Amino acid sequence: KVSIIMGSTSDLPVMEKAAKVLNDFKIPFEINALSAHRTPEQVEKFAKNAKENGIQAIIAGAGMAAHLPGVIAAMTSIPVIGVPIKASLDGMDALLSIAQMPPGIPVATVGINGAMNAGILAAQILAVGDENLQEAVIEFKEGLKEKIVKANEELSTVKYDYKTN
Amino acid sequence: KVSIIMGSTSDLPVMEKAAKVLNDFKIPFEINALSAHRTPEQVEKFAKNAKENGIQAIIAGAGMAAHLPGVIAAMTSIPVIGVPIKASLDGMDALLSIAQMPPGIPVATVGINGAMNAGILAAQILAVGDENLQEAVIEFKEGLKEKIVKANEELSTVKYDYKTN
Amino acid sequence: KVSIIMGSTSDLPVMEKAAKVLNDFKIPFEINALSAHRTPEQVEKFAKNAKENGIQAIIAGAGMAAHLPGVIAAMTSIPVIGVPIKASLDGMDALLSIAQMPPGIPVATVGINGAMNAGILAAQILAVGDENLQEAVIEFKEGLKEKIVKANEELSTVKYDYKTN
Amino acid sequence: KVSIIMGSTSDLPVMEKAAKVLNDFKIPFEINALSAHRTPEQVEKFAKNAKENGIQAIIAGAGMAAHLPGVIAAMTSIPVIGVPIKASLDGMDALLSIAQMPPGIPVATVGINGAMNAGILAAQILAVGDENLQEAVIEFKEGLKEKIVKANEELSTVKYDYKTN
Amino acid sequence: KVSIIMGSTSDLPVMEKAAKVLNDFKIPFEINALSAHRTPEQVEKFAKNAKENGIQAIIAGAGMAAHLPGVIAAMTSIPVIGVPIKASLDGMDALLSIAQMPPGIPVATVGINGAMNAGILAAQILAVGDENLQEAVIEFKEGLKEKIVKANEELSTVKYDYKTN
Amino acid sequence: KVSIIMGSTSDLPVMEKAAKVLNDFKIPFEINALSAHRTPEQVEKFAKNAKENGIQAIIAGAGMAAHLPGVIAAMTSIPVIGVPIKASLDGMDALLSIAQMPPGIPVATVGINGAMNAGILAAQILAVGDENLQEAVIEFKEGLKEKIVKANEELSTVKYDYKTN
Amino acid sequence: KVSIIMGSTSDLPVMEKAAKVLNDFKIPFEINALSAHRTPEQVEKFAKNAKENGIQAIIAGAGMAAHLPGVIAAMTSIPVIGVPIKASLDGMDALLSIAQMPPGIPVATVGINGAMNAGILAAQILAVGDENLQEAVIEFKEGLKEKIVKANEELSTVKYDYKTN
Amino acid sequence: KVSIIMGSTSDLPVMEKAAKVLNDFKIPFEINALSAHRTPEQVEKFAKNAKENGIQAIIAGAGMAAHLPGVIAAMTSIPVIGVPIKASLDGMDALLSIAQMPPGIPVATVGINGAMNAGILAAQILAVGDENLQEAVIEFKEGLKEKIVKANEELSTVKYDYKTN
Repeated sequence: KVSIIMGSTSDLPVMEKAAKVLNDFKIPFEINALSAHRTPEQVEKFAKNAKENGIQAIIAGAGMAAHLPGVIAAMTSIPVIGVPIKASLDGMDALLSIAQMPPGIPVATVGINGAMNAGILAAQILAVGDENLQEAVIEFKEGLKEKIVKANEELSTVKYDYKTN
Repeated sequence: KVSIIMGSTSDLPVMEKAAKVLNDFKIPFEINALSAHRTPEQVEKFAKNAKENGIQAIIAGAGMAAHLPGVIAAMTSIPVIGVPIKASLDGMDALLSIAQMPPGIPVATVGINGAMNAGILAAQILAVGDENLQEAVIEFKEGLKEKIVKANEELSTVKYDYKTN
Repeated sequence: KVSIIMGSTSDLPVMEKAAKVLNDFKIPFEINALSAHRTPEQVEKFAKNAKENGIQAIIAGAGMAAHLPGVIAAMTSIPVIGVPIKASLDGMDALLSIAQMPPGIPVATVGINGAMNAGILAAQILAVGDENLQEAVIEFKEGLKEKIVKANEELSTVKYDYKTN
Repeated sequence: KVSIIMGSTSDLPVMEKAAKVLNDFKIPFEINALSAHRTPEQVEKFAKNAKENGIQAIIAGAGMAAHLPGVIAAMTSIPVIGVPIKASLDGMDALLSIAQMPPGIPVATVGINGAMNAGILAAQILAVGDENLQEAVIEFKEGLKEKIVKANEELSTVKYDYKTN
Repeated sequence: KVSIIMGSTSDLPVMEKAAKVLNDFKIPFEINALSAHRTPEQVEKFAKNAKENGIQAIIAGAGMAAHLPGVIAAMTSIPVIGVPIKASLDGMDALLSIAQMPPGIPVATVGINGAMNAGILAAQILAVGDENLQEAVIEFKEGLKEKIVKANEELSTVKYDYKTN
Repeated sequence: KVSIIMGSTSDLPVMEKAAKVLNDFKIPFEINALSAHRTPEQVEKFAKNAKENGIQAIIAGAGMAAHLPGVIAAMTSIPVIGVPIKASLDGMDALLSIAQMPPGIPVATVGINGAMNAGILAAQILAVGDENLQEAVIEFKEGLKEKIVKANEELSTVKYDYKTN
Repeated sequence: KVSIIMGSTSDLPVMEKAAKVLNDFKIPFEINALSAHRTPEQVEKFAKNAKENGIQAIIAGAGMAAHLPGVIAAMTSIPVIGVPIKASLDGMDALLSIAQMPPGIPVATVGINGAMNAGILAAQILAVGDENLQEAVIEFKEGLKEKIVKANEELSTVKYDYKTN
Repeated sequence: KVSIIMGSTSDLPVMEKAAKVLNDFKIPFEINALSAHRTPEQVEKFAKNAKENGIQAIIAGAGMAAHLPGVIAAMTSIPVIGVPIKASLDGMDALLSIAQMPPGIPVATVGINGAMNAGILAAQILAVGDENLQEAVIEFKEGLKEKIVKANEELSTVKYDYKTN
């Protein structure tokens, strides 16, 4: 099971892309709003009980001085995936606040607003010990190629005198 | 009383400048190493008991994804002064991780490696309700001018044919 | 009493968030427009008389090469809270112009456009010597949690086949 | 089993921290030099055979326009951990080249030169399906606290007239 | 012949400017969508056969962690022109991911969204061994001056009391 | 006389602010479009004849890799004021391309899109040898204060229960 | 007469390059240490009396949150040349704090640590009304070419089999 | 024939890497020092005569506000390769001043201090119409793999208990 955490519901449009991916992979997941700064006790309770609640990977999104992923990672041994959310400075503040963790407490950081990739990464992590899921991940990656095939079809309709394909 | 917190003793050479200032102002202070990521429980215990332990202002220094000041600020109503420590990216990661706090949980951020200023700011905060300390702060600011007077004396020894002073 | 200063009325929509917070805390405050560059004499007069006018903390907002907070801080022993206003370069110029003060003259910098946090920080500073206000700050921080509770309620309405909560 | 990949042996001093961590966790690992740009065929061969060679997680370090982690991630369903190496621009070019992956191909990015954290993250990922390893990770995190205890002991030797602890 | 490659059709509005320029120069060209991450095999096949397919220069556009130009450059001796596409962080991530290539594998990088310049550069490269094309490039550069002449005519209509031209 | 130069008429909305200021100061000026890259010969002719054409200061605006101000400064002894125009990367590329001139060839750089300030600076430079213009500059600076007075009047209409002014 | 101002004598090694240039041009100048933050009254006194003290241009250097040039510019109609001094963040904080002045108060900004260029710019400004000085500036610029001639001589000693010059 | 240009001989240690590569490829080349700012006439003369002097590609290196590559590109139809030299701001100013050229005048930009890659790119460009040189480029790229083989041999000497290769 995967847990998706966000600091406020304003992050939902971004973070929902992770939910969609997990749903497509048929991986059970929960979504919660928890704030490292507003509800530190809940964050602690959540992080410390995550393992015995069957959570295997945590996806945490936050913007600005984005402490949530790092704070959760400090309190659990479950892998934490951090999603820097673009709220100011084009998301650069969140990227640095999440990626630049000190030695000892890693956060698996994805790109700015990269919640879809966070979902895929969670699936890849769960797939380490799950052959079926691994198959599904491989299939998913195959599926990405179809978009390119389609893209090429679109491009074949672009017409120029000196275009040769 | 002021509490100086740092994530590791490698930050001591920077953070000690805050200690020196407080000592000069004769403000009692304590120094502790606490890590938002390695000892979250101690951080919590420290932050929640700070007020009843007589702490009136907290100076917290941290580098990289510098969560310590923000995490403490989330758990106390005492003003928290954040010192971004230059450990990577010229300290820009720490500056953003400390200054860009979300609405509701301010951290009073000083410049990169600006622990001396953090000490002065703590003194200014304590002086709000303490006439004697306020006098001392005013005197301190007066003292800064002397350096400039001295600087001008040094500059008068710089000689050029067309220098007129 | 707190004084809110801004360089031009175009900053009012941002800076008014500080006013709102102070009003909620029932802290008397004044709002003035003063420019470090256009009315340096008024800035000086304001800063030098602030203490005897009963001001206990100053909130100063400015954008671009944001000198106002630092210039005021140079002329008073009252704590100055600086609000970097986003007017160009995503506010990065203002953040650096306010935070990177030289040794001796601290400005308590909050995040870009962080006027609400500036108001809260002013309240925290005044609360150092005021038990009632301290209670109010603690209550305010408690109130922040309610938003998260509400957020979680909203999230419970998000439906996916594999969502477990 | 984990595979540590680097683009050149000049990255060894950084990447060896990952090896050390894995060794401490008693996780079998291999180290190889492979370049996305100089030996693309080997990279492809490596990535495509990784799973059947028993690799469960890949740690790939690269500097500058750091394509190695992303290129490997494109050719395997195994989770790839990217380590941005500081070779120019303070490592910012490598951080962005690794973290900002397009939708579909995540790389679990750690901080600049953060190979130690990459090792820990690999252990956390393998521990998802391995109770013993999970115990070891929890123990490791406990061990981090001891450093802080030691740090506090060191700090108790710092003496100031107004220091109270 | 020139080959224009892009990672997805969403880049077409930018990359089409290169097509237009090549068409104006009457240089035959093809346009294809290929993704370094989604279709690595096709990229490899394309790059390795480019020369015998008569390709003399490749224009590759990509955004974010833009690996496509570098990955192609790694697999061919034909000059590769990289176009950083603005998709996040104002295009700075793409610029660094393309320009900062390691020693051995150059990519001829143009400005952010600079596909028109990529087309001109391709023409300049093909013109090295083609006198007619060289004439066309010289003519093209002459044509740029006309815009300025026109611009000056427009400016002559701007009226001020103290404007002298 | 002052000469206002821009690389293309698309810069006119920004650069016209300089024209307006000069017109208000009753300083004769001309406006021309000249491109360092498209019409280098005209730029050279302009720069070399500027002095004997009675030009006393040059205002040159350019965006992106903004070479125009520096190239003109290389070919004349008249002071050149550079205006970085925001065309990409928030204008940071233009700011660095104009300000970071090598030793020997200064450009007097103003802020991003700061054409109004460029006009004022030109007036200040011409005023060095012109008492009347100096008076006008002093008056102009006085005029800036009126805006602040007005701003304060507006602020007096902002009402809060705890607002004291 | 030109006045060189710096915030502290630690800036002298950089700022002295301006002195050297002015001395070479036989332009009388003074050097003073004045701090916008530590001695605001002296700064004010200096700026307001500059004109009647015969100052025609002011060169002000400062690092970090570099307010000195802007604060002086706010209090005089004499042109102010700002030199961003590299003290932190590679000098980027000082560059932005000096260049990004609000409308109404320009500072003629040179490059980071560009005090030599500040001296030349001051000479160019004074030369607007001084034929002799203008000659000297033209001669100075001619002199710059000699370095390149010398450089080419050095380069002719570099030997390679395929080097043709 | 290729022409290597640099703004000053201080750039020689960087730019000589381009010379070395060209020499290895047995491509005749010349090296000259020319400054866009100090010797604009020579730059013009060089650029305009380059073609009839048999130059087929130009490699131009410059630091800071690096105008040289763009200024040369404006005056010739020969492809110009720009090398941003790290002289300040980690080379970011030079990278932007070279890469961000306006539409119409491309510069083929390589990485910061990437003169070796500039040499290879020049070889690739000349190879477009030269089968023998193309063979040499392909061989060169093959040679890059040997370094990796060697690297792997070195890595096989790294010993850990749990290292499996």
